[in-house]
Amino acid sequence: MRMNHDRADTDRAARSVNAAGAPDTWQHHKISMPEACTGDGRGLEFAHPADMADHLEHLSLEKQICALRRMPTEDAAGALAELDGNVAVDVLENLDVDVAAQIIAEMAPDDAADVLDDLDEGHRDELLGRLTRENSEELRNLLNFDPDSAAGAMNTEVILLGKTLTVDEAIAHIRSEMEDKESPYYGYVVDHRDVLVGVLSVRDLMLAKPGTIVGDAVAEQAVISVLYDADRREAAGLLSHYNFLALPVVDYDGHIMGVVTYDDIMDIMHEEASADMLGMVGADPEESVDTPWRESVRGRLPWLLINLVNSALSASVVYMFEGTIAQMAMLAVLMPMVANQAGNTGQQALAVMIRQLATDRFDHKKAWLAVLREAKIGFVTGLFMAVTTFFGAWCFTKNMIVGGVMAGSLLCDMMLGAVAGGSIPLIFRAVGRDPAHASSIFLTTITDGAGFFIFLGLATVFIF
Amino acid sequence: MRMNHDRADTDRAARSVNAAGAPDTWQHHKISMPEACTGDGRGLEFAHPADMADHLEHLSLEKQICALRRMPTEDAAGALAELDGNVAVDVLENLDVDVAAQIIAEMAPDDAADVLDDLDEGHRDELLGRLTRENSEELRNLLNFDPDSAAGAMNTEVILLGKTLTVDEAIAHIRSEMEDKESPYYGYVVDHRDVLVGVLSVRDLMLAKPGTIVGDAVAEQAVISVLYDADRREAAGLLSHYNFLALPVVDYDGHIMGVVTYDDIMDIMHEEASADMLGMVGADPEESVDTPWRESVRGRLPWLLINLVNSALSASVVYMFEGTIAQMAMLAVLMPMVANQAGNTGQQALAVMIRQLATDRFDHKKAWLAVLREAKIGFVTGLFMAVTTFFGAWCFTKNMIVGGVMAGSLLCDMMLGAVAGGSIPLIFRAVGRDPAHASSIFLTTITDGAGFFIFLGLATVFIF
Repeated sequence: MRMNHDRADTDRAARSVNAAGAPDTWQHHKISMPEACTGDGRGLEFAHPADMADHLEHLSLEKQICALRRMPTEDAAGALAELDGNVAVDVLENLDVDVAAQIIAEMAPDDAADVLDDLDEGHRDELLGRLTRENSEELRNLLNFDPDSAAGAMNTEVILLGKTLTVDEAIAHIRSEMEDKESPYYGYVVDHRDVLVGVLSVRDLMLAKPGTIVGDAVAEQAVISVLYDADRREAAGLLSHYNFLALPVVDYDGHIMGVVTYDDIMDIMHEEASADMLGMVGADPEESVDTPWRESVRGRLPWLLINLVNSALSASVVYMFEGTIAQMAMLAVLMPMVANQAGNTGQQALAVMIRQLATDRFDHKKAWLAVLREAKIGFVTGLFMAVTTFFGAWCFTKNMIVGGVMAGSLLCDMMLGAVAGGSIPLIFRAVGRDPAHASSIFLTTITDGAGFFIFLGLATVFIF
Repeated sequence: MRMNHDRADTDRAARSVNAAGAPDTWQHHKISMPEACTGDGRGLEFAHPADMADHLEHLSLEKQICALRRMPTEDAAGALAELDGNVAVDVLENLDVDVAAQIIAEMAPDDAADVLDDLDEGHRDELLGRLTRENSEELRNLLNFDPDSAAGAMNTEVILLGKTLTVDEAIAHIRSEMEDKESPYYGYVVDHRDVLVGVLSVRDLMLAKPGTIVGDAVAEQAVISVLYDADRREAAGLLSHYNFLALPVVDYDGHIMGVVTYDDIMDIMHEEASADMLGMVGADPEESVDTPWRESVRGRLPWLLINLVNSALSASVVYMFEGTIAQMAMLAVLMPMVANQAGNTGQQALAVMIRQLATDRFDHKKAWLAVLREAKIGFVTGLFMAVTTFFGAWCFTKNMIVGGVMAGSLLCDMMLGAVAGGSIPLIFRAVGRDPAHASSIFLTTITDGAGFFIFLGLATVFIF
């Protein structure tokens, strides 16, 4: 953890924080891309490292390497921090180690740690070996934290204010530190043991009566912070709940370890939303179109296998009624409609519940009321569908009993689907699993199996 | 659009912006809740309006009304801004109009507009009628913008800097305006015609050489802004891409109309992620567990009906082969497994693609390469599953041809599912539809229909 730096280090940090896209207007800062590498004749100018990163992602690996090697190191650091994880890894593994190490050294510690985290052990140690001892120690320290924890997303460069400073001294101090820090608009008030006792924004300080002692200004505060080992979702929830620019990360003794800034939270929110959607259908939560397809195959196959086993279970239900179907093949025609409809109903409930859990503000009572709500919806929509399909199946098969069987099984299965879709995420969470992961696969097993069983069961009882 | 206020108005704006949860540390600001309303004996204290809102959401409507009526108006305004949409509407419709109008007047214009937008015409006009002319005009103005556009999410209270100011004057001006503004850390540099020519952060200004002219400081800038009628997703994409605290919203002549701040963008990101997930399975994109269940029924029924029609289509495919099934009921047992597996494969592709489109940085070439990627994944996973099911079905049915039919149809359907899942969002986007909406329903129709057709078709050809 780096709270103070020697001068040289600070300079580097300063440039790196700027190049790393700190919360700032940025437009004044232009990166020009070396002509020789752009492929086309003209040299390109980018207002922001993020744009440079976008451009790099469209180049071949060779051109990416060439461009980064020729760029000013601080610009390369900025671009690297904004590159897609997979691309960044390829680049770092193919850059000369020394150049790579220089770029890493330029990056904001949290961004550097994120990139290094994706590298294989060997490359990582080789790179860390080329950094200054202090630098590599800090990065190893950050790399030890769970990437999904608050500490895994935190930036260690924060502005600390002693309790005894006046607001004027505090403003002066912030002004002097501002250039080096990613979150320059908050000062964190600590006592002599570095325990966090309050937070003051530049706005608070500018509006405070001159001469006020910082300690007094925060005397009334109940500081909102997150424990370093909390899930990063919790940090995201807190920050967006309170609309903070940055959320302090503390250890169990209340010592400030760093901050998670709003821009990192935005990335976390996006990643977690993807994780929910992808996880729901059994893809790797971190998969994107940039994931190497072989990796995706490895990630998806296990869930496809589980899905195969599950659908074999539903199939075995149908097998129980093979005789019934042999007598009336029409049942095989209508059977999938029941399962499909209930599956869709369940997925609607599932999606609503998963998104609700994503907000992290959902107590038990409210949760089960939500399941009850889904049951009501399932019953009413089920009733509607039952009536529709009753007449549909009746007219189609000229057999009223088939219509009745269709209607009855559809109503039951849709209600079951709604309740299952609503409760699966809650059950998963209760047993400590990710509420979203593979939920859709388990839901389909239930709605298919039950749908087939009820439909064919009723048919066996009433039709023959 | 309100750029300057008379004093009284500024005071109100100032309190309202604070009460509305501007980006700030907040801990120093405590709201105490009137005892008589808390239900339990003690008076509650909240560090933040968002906490007050959470508490209110757990109370009965009567207690909510009572609490808001007794609270200091500015606190009520802050809490109301953080309340869930449906709750806020109930409250406003049941509060005495005068009290409601006072609270609305206290709120930040963008928050007030959001709440009023959910009210029915009658209540809205009645409330607007009680406000000052200037106030109601501004709100009517904001209400005219599409809520899904950048302007629909913008805050009109921005700090403007004339080109001719020095940085020192600029800092002094920002300091004087700071209290009134939701985004107090950026100054927007405009020429004499209010055309936006640059953006300077408080950090930029504090680090700039004293005496520098603001106009010169931004001379090099290529200002990044969003058009007022752009989709709010675009604003969200730009702000999170550049890690800005606020993104200026401009008209077609480049005049600044307001800003969208990072805290609103976080809400937008969360809402859009929910919209994708809910829309995918045909639920109302804005549905949550707080949506009245009758409303949800109305929202979901149409899609369930479409799903019913679609599954009837797949059923008609099975109907074509009724004879085949009559001869070999076992086919009805295995048939759903093919469709189910392909459906899951397709949903994995679908989820990956929808999340990719959510990032808003996805050109055509890359898009179709992503579909190719899914095709590869579908082929390899399909091959793996085909081999597995070949032996499975063979052993189970003692019929090698059935195994072959199963394997062949599974491979074809899984590849089709992968390609369909990958392309449906792109096709939807190309024809101007929401890429996510009901995509899963259409996908299932394809994988079910094709799965049944290929499986039963091959069976008819090869088994009999």
